[in-house]
Amino acid sequence: KTEEKGRNWGWLLSGFISLNILLLGIAIVSGSVFNTIQITSAHLQIFLIFLVILTTIWMVYYKIHTSRVYRAVLYKDSHAGPIWLRGGLVLFGVCSVIMDIFKIIYYVGRMHCDSPVKIAFPVVQALFVIVQTYILWVHAKDCVQIQQIITRCGLMLTLSTNLMVWMTAVTEESLHQTVFPADPSYNGSSNGGYKIDVTSQDRAGPSDCKCSHNLCDVFEKAYYYLYPFNIEYSLFASAMAYVMWKNVGRQVDEHHSHSPRFSLWDVLIGPVAGLIVLVAGLATFVVYEVDVSKGDQKKKENALIMHYIMNIVAILLMSITTLIGCIIFRMDKREQVSGKNPTRSLDVGLLVGASLGQFFICYFTIVAVLASGVQGHINGLNLANSILTVIQLCLQNAFLIKGLHREPFKETETSTVFANVMAVRERDPDRRSSSIVPAHTLPIPLTFLRGRLSWKRRILKEICGFLLFCNVILWIMPAFGARPQFDNTVGSDIYVFETWAAIVNIGMPFGIFYRMHSVASLFEVCLTS
Amino acid sequence: KTEEKGRNWGWLLSGFISLNILLLGIAIVSGSVFNTIQITSAHLQIFLIFLVILTTIWMVYYKIHTSRVYRAVLYKDSHAGPIWLRGGLVLFGVCSVIMDIFKIIYYVGRMHCDSPVKIAFPVVQALFVIVQTYILWVHAKDCVQIQQIITRCGLMLTLSTNLMVWMTAVTEESLHQTVFPADPSYNGSSNGGYKIDVTSQDRAGPSDCKCSHNLCDVFEKAYYYLYPFNIEYSLFASAMAYVMWKNVGRQVDEHHSHSPRFSLWDVLIGPVAGLIVLVAGLATFVVYEVDVSKGDQKKKENALIMHYIMNIVAILLMSITTLIGCIIFRMDKREQVSGKNPTRSLDVGLLVGASLGQFFICYFTIVAVLASGVQGHINGLNLANSILTVIQLCLQNAFLIKGLHREPFKETETSTVFANVMAVRERDPDRRSSSIVPAHTLPIPLTFLRGRLSWKRRILKEICGFLLFCNVILWIMPAFGARPQFDNTVGSDIYVFETWAAIVNIGMPFGIFYRMHSVASLFEVCLTS
Repeated sequence: KTEEKGRNWGWLLSGFISLNILLLGIAIVSGSVFNTIQITSAHLQIFLIFLVILTTIWMVYYKIHTSRVYRAVLYKDSHAGPIWLRGGLVLFGVCSVIMDIFKIIYYVGRMHCDSPVKIAFPVVQALFVIVQTYILWVHAKDCVQIQQIITRCGLMLTLSTNLMVWMTAVTEESLHQTVFPADPSYNGSSNGGYKIDVTSQDRAGPSDCKCSHNLCDVFEKAYYYLYPFNIEYSLFASAMAYVMWKNVGRQVDEHHSHSPRFSLWDVLIGPVAGLIVLVAGLATFVVYEVDVSKGDQKKKENALIMHYIMNIVAILLMSITTLIGCIIFRMDKREQVSGKNPTRSLDVGLLVGASLGQFFICYFTIVAVLASGVQGHINGLNLANSILTVIQLCLQNAFLIKGLHREPFKETETSTVFANVMAVRERDPDRRSSSIVPAHTLPIPLTFLRGRLSWKRRILKEICGFLLFCNVILWIMPAFGARPQFDNTVGSDIYVFETWAAIVNIGMPFGIFYRMHSVASLFEVCLTS
Repeated sequence: KTEEKGRNWGWLLSGFISLNILLLGIAIVSGSVFNTIQITSAHLQIFLIFLVILTTIWMVYYKIHTSRVYRAVLYKDSHAGPIWLRGGLVLFGVCSVIMDIFKIIYYVGRMHCDSPVKIAFPVVQALFVIVQTYILWVHAKDCVQIQQIITRCGLMLTLSTNLMVWMTAVTEESLHQTVFPADPSYNGSSNGGYKIDVTSQDRAGPSDCKCSHNLCDVFEKAYYYLYPFNIEYSLFASAMAYVMWKNVGRQVDEHHSHSPRFSLWDVLIGPVAGLIVLVAGLATFVVYEVDVSKGDQKKKENALIMHYIMNIVAILLMSITTLIGCIIFRMDKREQVSGKNPTRSLDVGLLVGASLGQFFICYFTIVAVLASGVQGHINGLNLANSILTVIQLCLQNAFLIKGLHREPFKETETSTVFANVMAVRERDPDRRSSSIVPAHTLPIPLTFLRGRLSWKRRILKEICGFLLFCNVILWIMPAFGARPQFDNTVGSDIYVFETWAAIVNIGMPFGIFYRMHSVASLFEVCLTS
């Protein structure tokens, strides 16, 4: 009973620590955005350095303590830290470290006119990323049993630090991407146009500061391209820290879940169709980027029309297949997974939460287009695209939530593979009860039996394969710079430009994360169905 | 099993309906704020009228259906819809209807130059408020068993409609209160100054529109004073609809919870001390309002200093008593309430969520004061006040969360009242086990025994009483127009004025709601402890 009490106070205390760090952080970030004189980005970075060092110290302490104390970690949560999450963490971690190195080189060149904090932060961050990646890789599944209050607070500190790093990165990325169109006749384009970086130069120091080596420009461009990876790294680490926090003091019965066999040949039509969409999307994306960057109004409009048609076709196909998938789920009699599983709850929460970003952009677009009185092909296509995207997001969320909550199919799978006659007999109650079919006719070709029995599973797998590739292309296009929201003037005409830019720049990273996360979830649904 | 399936699909479907209504609503509200030409407030009101009528139709259908079908409502959740919530709903509902009547009169006077939608909306809204208050009063405790999917969707529709009405009211109230100080030497004060209504006149129509009867100004002022009640009404109704939604299909074992006896004479010191703080707060508040509205810089500064000192004293006392309360909770061996209870979860969620508003304002103030380099008494007091408020909010949240999760004390209470010797014996295991005390000495004066045994309870009740009155004064001051955040220039100097106004105007209603909600929760904790 005292343990449960401690647990409750631990919850409250760690929650308040996290809340306070985050709110203070938000205030400092807002201050550094709106006021560049009294609250500089150096202040923000000092705050971050402090947080990062504190978290690193705690992680080292945790490692030493849990490895020395007997029975520190009694249980492991088999659902926590799946391989794709840990793999992604390492991949993005490596990219983050490279980004930090580029940043260090860049700021070393500007050392004579910039604050030394600018060099200190990437150094500390690189160290932090290395330590954290190691700790999370090794300990992601832990259900800690000792010193629960301290562990909870430490994990919440880790979570808050990662969220703060994420918030800072998103803000810098937004400021970097946003430039107000000073000239109304200015043909801003997705690659060349509106990415001219005035804000970040203002923030980095006076513009007459010259770099002492001549690689500054290259490294600045390079590290801005690596920002999205750092953003994803922080989100992954936050998710894992949150699951560890949820698992503190939890006592699960360790049942080893067999990782289901995955064969590429189970599915064919779905992935191939998905690949076709992917290739077509890539082709139109390249043409779009080239045409839009030319600045010719006519070409730009054609490029937009092409881009919208491509998107509408892809999303329409996705909606139809997802709907079929939902109907199959509705028909299927399979059990729902019951029982607590923080990883799954978090997965679902992140999925729905991240989809809000795209929902927002779509609804703002719909209202803007309707308010401007749908004129011309582009506006019509834009409207259709937004409405279809809303429908697709709803269907895909429903499909993934249902899919992640289904009991995996593994038991029957293995029995079929072993070709056990009794198992086959048990699996087919109709045959078993009817006395007309003699027992010796049962070992019919198993592949045929399997194909006949699991047509639902096969369709589901095909659907997952198709959706997976479609989500990849919908992720690639915004991630590599397609911003039809800015190339099309309807949004910035109806709302003020700043508002529209804020909506798109905040919503987009969530949209990209949503597509990435969907790919991972679809892969999981594909395996378990 | 099919029921559970239906339940899950109902969850998803109703969730998506609510999500889509809310997002579309947010887009329209933003559009009507940033663009007054293509998206007018008439468009927004047409959307609201549509929602409100749909919800009213559903509620009438629900009433008819559940009263005609046998076994429609098998269970009632005794925790849902407590009397203070339903009473508050009726009170605020009456105020909302009065507000609608005032609005109708006002817009009838402007009928010749304004859209007829402006009259239609309050008419429909008044009807909606009456129907909804009746339905929620009668059906708040229902755990509906039939037509679960339709009921879920209907309840989510009700929730979304109320949230949309709430959002619109908050936006209008914010726009009404915000005026940008055009003249830097302008001494804006909380009552006269910055409330000059330019924005809402811009929105209401051309300013040369004359009212056909001469009561327009009076009614406009009156209905703006009634806005906060309408805002609270929507929040209360949303909360009750949410709890009903959570209870759909739930099967609880109906255990009648005795409402614990409440005697005013149990507690004395706490409420008296609280009343003293309340009266002192009211006095300083009146002086502050009078001095600030005079526009004399010297007087204004003195008023601010007085206001801050009053706040600091009150919050310091509250923090200390809350800390004592938390320590008693920690020492106390009483059981935690286990089991699902949507009302309690919602209570806690709303409490923490609403406190975020004040947290935000405090942290932004702290950062602003620190960035301006704490100069002068006012800034120092402002800083101290903000830091103490943060601490007090954390402590009070912890105290209330702990208090709401404790098992109520009723069993022992009743046994004491009945003066049952066996019960007394059972209550005191030490006496029972020790054979030195003979049985006939047990019926000692019961009042003494009770006083001795429940000193912890008595202190807790005193603390609750004190905190209750303190929260009332902290609720009254902002609710009736104290805005030291604007009278003090540090916030608008560090951040841009628009940002600061947005933070304060969005955070404040939440802060007011938090204090109100705390009062209700403290009352509950006082009863059960």
